[in-house]
Amino acid sequence: MDVAKNLVRGLLIAATSVILVACGGSEEAKKTVKSESKVDVIHWKMVTTWPKNFPGLGTGAEGLAKSITEMSNGRLTVKVYAAGELVPALEVFDAVSRGTAQMGHGGAFYWKGKVPASQFFSAVPFGFTAQEMNSWLHYGGGLPLWEEIYAPFNLIPMAAGNTGVQMGGWFNKEINSLEDFKGLKMRLPGLGGEVLKKVGGIPVNLPGGEIFTSLQTGAIDATEWVGPYNDLAFGLYKAAKYNYFPGWHEPGSTMEALYNKEAFDALPKDLQLIVRAATRQANAVMLDEFTARNNAALETLVNDHQVILKRFPDEVLSALKKASIETLEEVAAADPMSQKVYDSFSAFNRKVRAWHQVSERAYINARELN
Amino acid sequence: MDVAKNLVRGLLIAATSVILVACGGSEEAKKTVKSESKVDVIHWKMVTTWPKNFPGLGTGAEGLAKSITEMSNGRLTVKVYAAGELVPALEVFDAVSRGTAQMGHGGAFYWKGKVPASQFFSAVPFGFTAQEMNSWLHYGGGLPLWEEIYAPFNLIPMAAGNTGVQMGGWFNKEINSLEDFKGLKMRLPGLGGEVLKKVGGIPVNLPGGEIFTSLQTGAIDATEWVGPYNDLAFGLYKAAKYNYFPGWHEPGSTMEALYNKEAFDALPKDLQLIVRAATRQANAVMLDEFTARNNAALETLVNDHQVILKRFPDEVLSALKKASIETLEEVAAADPMSQKVYDSFSAFNRKVRAWHQVSERAYINARELN
Repeated sequence: MDVAKNLVRGLLIAATSVILVACGGSEEAKKTVKSESKVDVIHWKMVTTWPKNFPGLGTGAEGLAKSITEMSNGRLTVKVYAAGELVPALEVFDAVSRGTAQMGHGGAFYWKGKVPASQFFSAVPFGFTAQEMNSWLHYGGGLPLWEEIYAPFNLIPMAAGNTGVQMGGWFNKEINSLEDFKGLKMRLPGLGGEVLKKVGGIPVNLPGGEIFTSLQTGAIDATEWVGPYNDLAFGLYKAAKYNYFPGWHEPGSTMEALYNKEAFDALPKDLQLIVRAATRQANAVMLDEFTARNNAALETLVNDHQVILKRFPDEVLSALKKASIETLEEVAAADPMSQKVYDSFSAFNRKVRAWHQVSERAYINARELN
Repeated sequence: MDVAKNLVRGLLIAATSVILVACGGSEEAKKTVKSESKVDVIHWKMVTTWPKNFPGLGTGAEGLAKSITEMSNGRLTVKVYAAGELVPALEVFDAVSRGTAQMGHGGAFYWKGKVPASQFFSAVPFGFTAQEMNSWLHYGGGLPLWEEIYAPFNLIPMAAGNTGVQMGGWFNKEINSLEDFKGLKMRLPGLGGEVLKKVGGIPVNLPGGEIFTSLQTGAIDATEWVGPYNDLAFGLYKAAKYNYFPGWHEPGSTMEALYNKEAFDALPKDLQLIVRAATRQANAVMLDEFTARNNAALETLVNDHQVILKRFPDEVLSALKKASIETLEEVAAADPMSQKVYDSFSAFNRKVRAWHQVSERAYINARELN
């Protein structure tokens, strides 16, 4: 195959030399030729952690594949595999690392067993909003650190989608004080689960397919999922009465695209830039979609399905915030790389929050004044 | 030129046919050839409303030009002209409309004299945040309306940058009540100026180059500009004592890229998609940059230049909000297209604000609890 490609390329260069002569070597012709001699056709596989056609997250990954294929005019095609089609969801990281697939789409929290510091790049309790996360990654030193922790695995990460602030979860009893978390069995994976443990709850890790039944039978007391758009489709309102906000545990969950380093480095520069821009586009598109679609779903949940929308009390949020900071400090203390990432994360957090006190927060409150 | 191009293309197709034969028509070769025969070299000019190297806004436009040039591997090159280099700032719209330049970068508020409805696509007092604006444009029907109002001018608009929530302006006296706006001469262009008039102030429209001196000599009492990152560089702290927040008049100012319709439509599909993705990328990059850089500038203003940071009182913000809604309704009532855009804008506004009550706003307040 490579031999055949090289043969084609060699012949093209020879052929285009003839054209140069034919055209008298005009500036226009020279530039045209320069592009011609670089074309190859490359086929990539994208493995994902999402079920087929999963709204927002899975469809976002499919949109990214389509963009790369079309922007490259078919020079780089990307075929998407849902979770389990080529590899199981939780093997995406390894599959891209070893080159079984050239790229993947998922969330960095899934890889905490391999790279504890990855947890700072997906969903951080009381962490960044989507806007803040993107700013930290692209202008605050976040992305270079993410690249550094994935480099030993032969992987290049990029932000590839964001849900915005999620909901706080589905409960069958009211949360009136911190006491109500004591002994509460809640499906809450990742760092949020660690925080729950600190306030006396029992975090349970369940795959998506088991959540609904577990909640309905009382095997768990509560669950979080994403936000109204996904939660409505998932039917969680049939198994729980109260939908709480805000999603303190996932205030701006970032999805990731993973690229196999050799595969990415082997691309010509223009295709690398196309991949980067397509990923950045996918990152923005997902947030735009969730922001636009959550309210209609929320209205359906409240008006058609009699879901009771409730805010966690201040006392509870304060305690969760305190427990979140403790949890993050423990994660940071466990290994030097996590500490390095956390130091960057928290320094940026202090600064961007100070700025958002006088901008985003001040405005979003001012416009609610009567 | 076109004849020469067609000649080159014709010869290329002929030449690649020979290759097909030479390679025995393998699948690989066929695909390679398909891409080869479409290459052209196109040179575009981008005119902008920004001074050369203007931080954030002008550099954002330059980044966009570079992305398009590099992602297309030089098949589509874009040369940037600062305001006045090819055409004056306020002639960008016309220059791209008639094809003097193939694209432009600026803000839709500049064209209100030609297209009153354009004002809903840049800076709207008490309007959308950056996240909300992007969601309305790309998933809420905003962009199709923007395209519709620019179509008669042979122009295709796209969002190409956002400043986030701006600051409320620079003042030499405190604003303690609405009375303090009476007779206040403030440089405040666009819809914000109309609102100021309603609360008794005197809006003044000054080009950037005259603001500093006017403020220093007392010819104006106050001015707005952008936010700390630009305001610090502009030296406004030398001419005013108080910096007020929030920027109620520009809560998520959107920059625009304008494309000449014939020039855009003449691009092959892959280049069109490259232009779209590069613009979407530029849209995100600018917000990331402002979000990351404003706080350091704000700290310098307060700590090194003794600027006094103040929030507008609730009473003032309430009155400005009321006056803003009146202003928008008047703009809408003036022509059917403005009404159509405003109807879409305000319907989306109700929905996204309802969602952000339980997500972005609820979270950004919860994390400030002790």
